[in-house]
Amino acid sequence: MASITHTPFSQCISPIALRSYLAEFLSTFIFVFSAVGSSISARMLTPDATSDSSALIATAVAQGFALSAAVFISGEVSGGHVNPAVTFAMTLGGHIPIPNAVFYWISQMLAATFASLLLRLSSAGQAIPTTRIAADMTGFGGAVLETVTTFTLVYTVYVAFDPRGSTTAKRSSRSAVGPILVGLVAGACVLATGSLTGGSMNPARSFGPAIVSGDLKNQAVYWVGPLIGAALATLVHQYLVYPFSHIESSAGSSVVV
Amino acid sequence: MASITHTPFSQCISPIALRSYLAEFLSTFIFVFSAVGSSISARMLTPDATSDSSALIATAVAQGFALSAAVFISGEVSGGHVNPAVTFAMTLGGHIPIPNAVFYWISQMLAATFASLLLRLSSAGQAIPTTRIAADMTGFGGAVLETVTTFTLVYTVYVAFDPRGSTTAKRSSRSAVGPILVGLVAGACVLATGSLTGGSMNPARSFGPAIVSGDLKNQAVYWVGPLIGAALATLVHQYLVYPFSHIESSAGSSVVV
Amino acid sequence: MASITHTPFSQCISPIALRSYLAEFLSTFIFVFSAVGSSISARMLTPDATSDSSALIATAVAQGFALSAAVFISGEVSGGHVNPAVTFAMTLGGHIPIPNAVFYWISQMLAATFASLLLRLSSAGQAIPTTRIAADMTGFGGAVLETVTTFTLVYTVYVAFDPRGSTTAKRSSRSAVGPILVGLVAGACVLATGSLTGGSMNPARSFGPAIVSGDLKNQAVYWVGPLIGAALATLVHQYLVYPFSHIESSAGSSVVV
Amino acid sequence: MASITHTPFSQCISPIALRSYLAEFLSTFIFVFSAVGSSISARMLTPDATSDSSALIATAVAQGFALSAAVFISGEVSGGHVNPAVTFAMTLGGHIPIPNAVFYWISQMLAATFASLLLRLSSAGQAIPTTRIAADMTGFGGAVLETVTTFTLVYTVYVAFDPRGSTTAKRSSRSAVGPILVGLVAGACVLATGSLTGGSMNPARSFGPAIVSGDLKNQAVYWVGPLIGAALATLVHQYLVYPFSHIESSAGSSVVV
Repeated sequence: MASITHTPFSQCISPIALRSYLAEFLSTFIFVFSAVGSSISARMLTPDATSDSSALIATAVAQGFALSAAVFISGEVSGGHVNPAVTFAMTLGGHIPIPNAVFYWISQMLAATFASLLLRLSSAGQAIPTTRIAADMTGFGGAVLETVTTFTLVYTVYVAFDPRGSTTAKRSSRSAVGPILVGLVAGACVLATGSLTGGSMNPARSFGPAIVSGDLKNQAVYWVGPLIGAALATLVHQYLVYPFSHIESSAGSSVVV
Repeated sequence: MASITHTPFSQCISPIALRSYLAEFLSTFIFVFSAVGSSISARMLTPDATSDSSALIATAVAQGFALSAAVFISGEVSGGHVNPAVTFAMTLGGHIPIPNAVFYWISQMLAATFASLLLRLSSAGQAIPTTRIAADMTGFGGAVLETVTTFTLVYTVYVAFDPRGSTTAKRSSRSAVGPILVGLVAGACVLATGSLTGGSMNPARSFGPAIVSGDLKNQAVYWVGPLIGAALATLVHQYLVYPFSHIESSAGSSVVV
Repeated sequence: MASITHTPFSQCISPIALRSYLAEFLSTFIFVFSAVGSSISARMLTPDATSDSSALIATAVAQGFALSAAVFISGEVSGGHVNPAVTFAMTLGGHIPIPNAVFYWISQMLAATFASLLLRLSSAGQAIPTTRIAADMTGFGGAVLETVTTFTLVYTVYVAFDPRGSTTAKRSSRSAVGPILVGLVAGACVLATGSLTGGSMNPARSFGPAIVSGDLKNQAVYWVGPLIGAALATLVHQYLVYPFSHIESSAGSSVVV
Repeated sequence: MASITHTPFSQCISPIALRSYLAEFLSTFIFVFSAVGSSISARMLTPDATSDSSALIATAVAQGFALSAAVFISGEVSGGHVNPAVTFAMTLGGHIPIPNAVFYWISQMLAATFASLLLRLSSAGQAIPTTRIAADMTGFGGAVLETVTTFTLVYTVYVAFDPRGSTTAKRSSRSAVGPILVGLVAGACVLATGSLTGGSMNPARSFGPAIVSGDLKNQAVYWVGPLIGAALATLVHQYLVYPFSHIESSAGSSVVV
């Protein structure tokens, strides 16, 4: 972990690293496809989707279930980040070298954009719904809520996959159900803040639809909030609740290289 | 267990104890944030939220999913109570010393209040929804229903995490899926009593929104019902279904100190 | 297993047997309370509940989640039947002696009745909703659908908890997630047949609300269908898919005495 | 695996093979019964089902929960395909001999047809809902979406049950929760594409209702899309993300004979 900043560039283009980028691309694609697709499908059934809470349930459940699967399928290959904020947290926590994290971000952003574009092209020109701040709210209020929900998500990811503070058997059982719980908490957070900020917690999930629809308003909220939330989760989990003196093993479960 | 009442005060301010309070604070914050936030988000989409059962589904699913995650993330640190009624039960069952339980309660109440306050401040002045007794019902009827649902919740917590009455392997597999099942049963109970009592089962979850909104009506129902339910669950689980003679190990899985 | 019909009566009033009846009472109470309560809560929000599919989702999700928890909490004590049809199947399959099965049935029927009565008394006189056959359907059609859905439920119970046809490790992992899957399949079946038969699959779940509301119409459908479905599931699972020659161990996981 | 094309015919009518066909029949029956039944039940509650997103939630949740259970109950007997596209992928990946795959397909198609017929006969003449392409969309767009969602489903199946690229312990914990995650991802995909293509991902699920209702329009979309998606998932999972050089064991977890 001490050698993070000295990782040679070759390590981030090794076959194992390339496979981890592909895994992040696939998982983020699946998650954003489900998030955006479920909004489109619900809106097609409810002309005025902003006045029906069943549309909120549809997209929250879709995102929760899809994130569980996305984390599950890439967990052993890339750590199952599916989210630039999670990758940011894992970089701060020393679980992934910075050069690899940069490729993770690129993979995640490309996947989110590609998922949005594919939905637009194949759905006969449906507008791509973006995450938005509620009419009366300030960008600051939105960023605070995104900070809180992303903190929740990233903290759950740490508990699910961090190797410290537990016996091997408990760790194994936690990581087995971990992907399910990461999805459940994401679903809960979308239900909690869906009408306020869109419940993004994920810069890529907000960026992809925004770039394809051409509506980049409030993008800053969906970067500032999640990245601060991710940093706070790292601080609280790694230094306060599970401090270093409790480390049982130094092998990071999310280390790629 | 016999030494519970003689626990020196120093044990409840040790680093391990302080971390357990922090874990309870975080988990209760996440749970109450999801419970209250989902009610706000559903209400914003449905002007007259009391006449749409999809608003009930939204908040029930949010609470179920959030409680699963809240129990999961604090389980190994604090026992994953997330609820003064669960802490009360664990005190009665001898699984946590009384001084520590007091700090648990304080952490839970502060977290619920802070979550409600943060939602109010960041959501452009949305009113904070509280748990309420249905128009025609008596406080007694409400307390009975809260007793029943809290009994159900606390009994499930005991089965998920109690170390008695089972082999080690079965216990391990039960505790692995335990947080998921605690969340599922909470979601079912909110769906069952949501229109009757608000489906609280948790004094902190009712107190936080009430204090922030200034509407403390019927608070007694949300303390009396859950605490009686928690006591009954302790009695039935620990003395009737899994009596002491079946104890395999005396180590409580929820003991903090 | 050969001694099933010769079980002395004393075995069905032993402390272990009495605890199993209590466990069945508690689990069936929780399940029926959630099934009936969720119908009441949804109906209170939607005056004409028969014209809103969100009321169907509310009760299906409540029943699925509650059944997962009900099976989970009584699994190791009573086998987690929660349903006279499951008890009937386990009797046919030789996993529980007939005298004990009779006490299981009594416990389940009492629990369902008590749950319905308690909801009626504490909810300010709300009418107790019963399972019904859709207007245009025949009782025969209803019984066929209840046969199919109960077959599905009981077959899943067999796969989750039957000790045959698998290695120990696989069996253990199946039984760990078993309660969750039993709940999920029940939720799916309620969604599939909720508007046609009410999606009962459980004679106790239909009997309790019927006796309390005084509307015993079509009760035969909810006994004939589920019991035939349970018998078919036993036949197909125990004799066709996992025939006796594959038995790895003769110890039934659901045997009470 | 090299002997796949030389499998003698006798192997595909052995008792073990016959049981695997029966298991596929039962699982596919349960899945299609839930998919079609939930559409009928939701439509009966909402006269104009195309304008209510709660009908979409009802059928998506029913399909997700039912698929989890369907994969769970047949997993150890037949590999838990429940879908001709999954069987096609497993044939391409060399995990099931071609003659057996043909019988799988026949079992799956018969089960889907029988489930649709049974619902029609027992539900007092309710029309059987089929999967359809949205009004404005092209068949090509529909096939692309079905390719994407089936890719997602089949890739998740590979991660859940493929024996390569992991330690034994991790593999075991993955396969324990695998059925749940396969169901969750299917639910997410139905929510994402339900209003666009019906979210089939399964030729049998589209064929059964179509043949019973006599409306075979767009059937090509529901074969071409899923089969291409299944082939792509095989290619990406088996050759790119988990290449052969990482094989730990040559025993396929889904091999029948």
